[in-house]
Amino acid sequence: MAGILDRINQPNDIKEVSPAQYNRLAKEIRHFLLHRVSEHGGHLASNLGAVELTMALHLFLDFPKDKLIWDVGHQAYVHKILTGRKEGFYSLREYEGMSGFPKRKESECDAFDTGHSSTSISVANGLVSARELSGGDEKIVAVIGDGALSGGMAMEALNNVGKLDSNLIIVLNDNNMSISENVGGMANYLAKIRSNAAYTGFKGGLEEALNKLPEVGTKIVRRLKQSKDSLKHFFIRGMYFEDLGITYIGPIDGHDIEQMRRALETAAKMPKAVLIHVVTKKGKGYEPAETDPGKFHGVEPFALKTGEVLRPSTGVSYTKMFSDTMLELGEENKKIVGVTAAMPTGTGLMAFAKRYPERFFDVGIAEEHAVTFAAGMAAGGYHPVVAVYSTFLQRAYDQILHDVCIGNLPVTFAVDRAGIVGRDGETHQGVFDLSYLAHIPNLTVMAPKSTVELRDMMHYAASCNFPVAIRYPRGTSEDTDGLSVEEIRYGEAEVLESAGNHIAGKAVALVAVGNTVALAYKLKARLEAEGISVSIVNARFVAPIDESTLLSMAKNHDVVVTLEENVARGGYGERVSALFMEENVNVRHIAGAISNQFIEHGGQQTLRDLYGLNEDELYQRIREVL
Amino acid sequence: MAGILDRINQPNDIKEVSPAQYNRLAKEIRHFLLHRVSEHGGHLASNLGAVELTMALHLFLDFPKDKLIWDVGHQAYVHKILTGRKEGFYSLREYEGMSGFPKRKESECDAFDTGHSSTSISVANGLVSARELSGGDEKIVAVIGDGALSGGMAMEALNNVGKLDSNLIIVLNDNNMSISENVGGMANYLAKIRSNAAYTGFKGGLEEALNKLPEVGTKIVRRLKQSKDSLKHFFIRGMYFEDLGITYIGPIDGHDIEQMRRALETAAKMPKAVLIHVVTKKGKGYEPAETDPGKFHGVEPFALKTGEVLRPSTGVSYTKMFSDTMLELGEENKKIVGVTAAMPTGTGLMAFAKRYPERFFDVGIAEEHAVTFAAGMAAGGYHPVVAVYSTFLQRAYDQILHDVCIGNLPVTFAVDRAGIVGRDGETHQGVFDLSYLAHIPNLTVMAPKSTVELRDMMHYAASCNFPVAIRYPRGTSEDTDGLSVEEIRYGEAEVLESAGNHIAGKAVALVAVGNTVALAYKLKARLEAEGISVSIVNARFVAPIDESTLLSMAKNHDVVVTLEENVARGGYGERVSALFMEENVNVRHIAGAISNQFIEHGGQQTLRDLYGLNEDELYQRIREVL
Repeated sequence: MAGILDRINQPNDIKEVSPAQYNRLAKEIRHFLLHRVSEHGGHLASNLGAVELTMALHLFLDFPKDKLIWDVGHQAYVHKILTGRKEGFYSLREYEGMSGFPKRKESECDAFDTGHSSTSISVANGLVSARELSGGDEKIVAVIGDGALSGGMAMEALNNVGKLDSNLIIVLNDNNMSISENVGGMANYLAKIRSNAAYTGFKGGLEEALNKLPEVGTKIVRRLKQSKDSLKHFFIRGMYFEDLGITYIGPIDGHDIEQMRRALETAAKMPKAVLIHVVTKKGKGYEPAETDPGKFHGVEPFALKTGEVLRPSTGVSYTKMFSDTMLELGEENKKIVGVTAAMPTGTGLMAFAKRYPERFFDVGIAEEHAVTFAAGMAAGGYHPVVAVYSTFLQRAYDQILHDVCIGNLPVTFAVDRAGIVGRDGETHQGVFDLSYLAHIPNLTVMAPKSTVELRDMMHYAASCNFPVAIRYPRGTSEDTDGLSVEEIRYGEAEVLESAGNHIAGKAVALVAVGNTVALAYKLKARLEAEGISVSIVNARFVAPIDESTLLSMAKNHDVVVTLEENVARGGYGERVSALFMEENVNVRHIAGAISNQFIEHGGQQTLRDLYGLNEDELYQRIREVL
Repeated sequence: MAGILDRINQPNDIKEVSPAQYNRLAKEIRHFLLHRVSEHGGHLASNLGAVELTMALHLFLDFPKDKLIWDVGHQAYVHKILTGRKEGFYSLREYEGMSGFPKRKESECDAFDTGHSSTSISVANGLVSARELSGGDEKIVAVIGDGALSGGMAMEALNNVGKLDSNLIIVLNDNNMSISENVGGMANYLAKIRSNAAYTGFKGGLEEALNKLPEVGTKIVRRLKQSKDSLKHFFIRGMYFEDLGITYIGPIDGHDIEQMRRALETAAKMPKAVLIHVVTKKGKGYEPAETDPGKFHGVEPFALKTGEVLRPSTGVSYTKMFSDTMLELGEENKKIVGVTAAMPTGTGLMAFAKRYPERFFDVGIAEEHAVTFAAGMAAGGYHPVVAVYSTFLQRAYDQILHDVCIGNLPVTFAVDRAGIVGRDGETHQGVFDLSYLAHIPNLTVMAPKSTVELRDMMHYAASCNFPVAIRYPRGTSEDTDGLSVEEIRYGEAEVLESAGNHIAGKAVALVAVGNTVALAYKLKARLEAEGISVSIVNARFVAPIDESTLLSMAKNHDVVVTLEENVARGGYGERVSALFMEENVNVRHIAGAISNQFIEHGGQQTLRDLYGLNEDELYQRIREVL
């Protein structure tokens, strides 16, 4: 059927749609989103919730002149639909297909690339300051969720935009969730505003009571209304923001386009920062997502009718093993506590949270606080396990170094989604953690070859009275689950395979970090078929490296090949090169790693093949050297 | 004269002092502080301001059982005096002397090591959660300045402590300053509370007016007082904190010990987080510091009578050259803007701020926002220069990577205080920046050999349409200022000295990063005296490295020595080793760098001698290899 959506083919086309048809367009957009995302996977619930909000913004703004910054960015699907990118949804998050996040190189209507949380107000503040200097008149709007507002950086930005003498519109998209349920004082505060009966009721009641007193009463009411400071609280909700110098408008129904348009027009007239508090329902219009928005935050392809994932992953993932092992640790050791930054489900901490609620701490999207809070608990005699994805732990680099490692405190970092993660792309790949962690003094950095070994490493780390980071990838380890796991000993690598007698022939030692052990076995098969002897070492420790095993490998082999799913710069391979140069060892070293670049979205294996850690290329490099 | 301070020799001794003598003790403490700091240098103004506050805390707390966390920590001198460390002030900030910051290894009364800003509430939250689990009853207090409150992490922590069901006392030490003047909505808000005449005046006025109406009026007043939500604003100051679930007490005179004791006792009774807003005067009791607290924030030894520094530094420091060059750049290029996180004076941006106020942005202690704000300005067509010390830029690692470098935006990072900084110790050494910056894709990392070259690099960076970091040390470059400076070309090192004809003899290439060029010249003199030919290369670029020059050096010399004032792990030397291994070059490589450990406080040269970059040791290592 020819719908209204068929007429939306480029930016600003929505302005030709008559208001009477807005609801139908919203319905068509949801229909389109549901079909595309159920086929391809992607972020669903937040986009379903932002349909009317995005429409209102597009009716209000003029693209690409005006600048719209989506915080995090996974909720920009409707924005993509309205800016001529419907076709892109047929290649959503595929390699060379459309990104699931705003990308400046994809459209001039995307003002800034986002991916991590809580950046939008800072970016918008920068754009406003640039506009002030250049004398432009473009509108600048940041859209931020209530979850992202708990990130310290967003609060730093709020603290700064209060002093602007120029218009900046912050749309607070409040769905009372981040990825999981929101926590903290701000969440409670917003909830209080939302349930505004109490507020307006009381206010109304007081105003009425006062007005009943002729003369004096009316005078008081007038006086209250005119007051600029604390008395404003009386009449204005959102005083928290007003206290910071930001005008508050709201709460507004985020599924009422006309109401939002009016609020945006009002906000645009003020020469200062204005926050419009919009209340939306995550998953709106698709019952399974409304009921369980967490499950439909980011999804694999699923059956529209049932909401069930089509190809559920099989095998035990690293995350599942982490989850199970936390239960074991919790049982064995009462000093173990679990800390997450708004991701109890994604990190697998939820099972621990349910079994040991008093030892579980979800601090909201606040990685910095998560780490230093853990440092405090460690100083208080506990052993926190901080579970954060590799890419998000970047935000707590200073806290790891300054608050945990200077004090040499027993905190275990469970660094999930390390290496290439796939479809979320540049902003989410976990390919830097070895580089940003391994140089920090006092910090031990490990990587397991399999889920089974992850379990052992977690037990090992829990027994340490110093900080340990364990990095492990997304997915399972089917190829290596069968390998036996030697006892973990501090700083020692595990020799998995020893090249046989190779006095006459050539010999290669493959030293693999974490999940690249599987790749090492593939290379071994291929090389041995050609008569080359191959040893395989599971590095286990990236900091400190096992110098003795490495030097012995160098001595007994013609080539040492290091393998790691991390950028080369600052990674394991460089440290090994430095050791060999330092010791003046006569050996060739091939460093298998990801070249130093940002890696776009695409399937995990596609990207592995493209960015250097693929079997053929490594095989060629080894053959060339031999 | 025998004073009261003579009787304060161990923790809790202050409790034996009679209240009538508190003022005299405060005076003696100030006298002691002034004499010790004027002799040794150190942090002065904040400590003078915190004398009575610290005394009140020590009267209230029981050490070491109770836990007191000093945010930043440079204001803990009085705490050290009151916990048996008076003698330490005679070796303040000297190598193996007393630290200028809280150190757990120095005293069991120091509950946590601090140094960077805005960490204390997170740590205290962790300690409270630990106490909850262990069933302890120790008191836990965080003392945080109003400046530190603008750091996002402190706000993340406030957002979290609002949900505590257990006592936590946050003392907000509000002196209306961080290192320099405070900025932002929070600062304005606190100022409004301080100047409370307007508040109480109005409130009083209204209450009075209402009470004048018998019956109805009194009823309204009662109703207002009983209200739990917005109406509280009417009667309670600090509603900003109350909105987050934190009880607010204040403002209180921070020089009135009895008033503070009462507030602390009241706060301790509440089973939740309580913020006591204490107003103090920075520099209190020493007129030059009261007048110019910024100058006396951290000081070199000075004359007590005049406040003048005794041995003013001579020569042009890197900071001064940065400052002067920013004026040139501002003049030449209207797109240049300057960004600092609360340190206009320390970074040298103040001159630019005065000349181009509309292009200067001080975002307060908020490094994350500073960087992403700069990314926004760059996306808006400007070229921000973000001036932040090496150690503080650690906090913006994710923002550099995610917000600036993924978008490849033209932002210049002026990374001052890189390398060993000296007396501030472990938390302030700038020895990690090459490791945390050089692996970030799209980021060019440079280091000048002299202040003159810093100027050229700044001009060069300002001409780049991509991100560049320039790292430079504290101090001057007297030994290298005389060296000529070749034109800067992308990715190219500068060959300063070429070894002569060395077919018969041995030859060494010294490849020096930044200020270590001076050391290279010293080594050259020594080696040449023994008939060894020496080349000197100024690396200039740490990312990318100049492979061609390095390989040519490797080809023509027996040994290549890299020199850098950064930890070895992830630094320049490792990358060079990796290149040599990759290219299978037959050369010896000695990596001169700082070993991977935290470096305590002490004189800059003392620490350089101790931690690996000293001439004798490098000379020995070279001789051993030759």
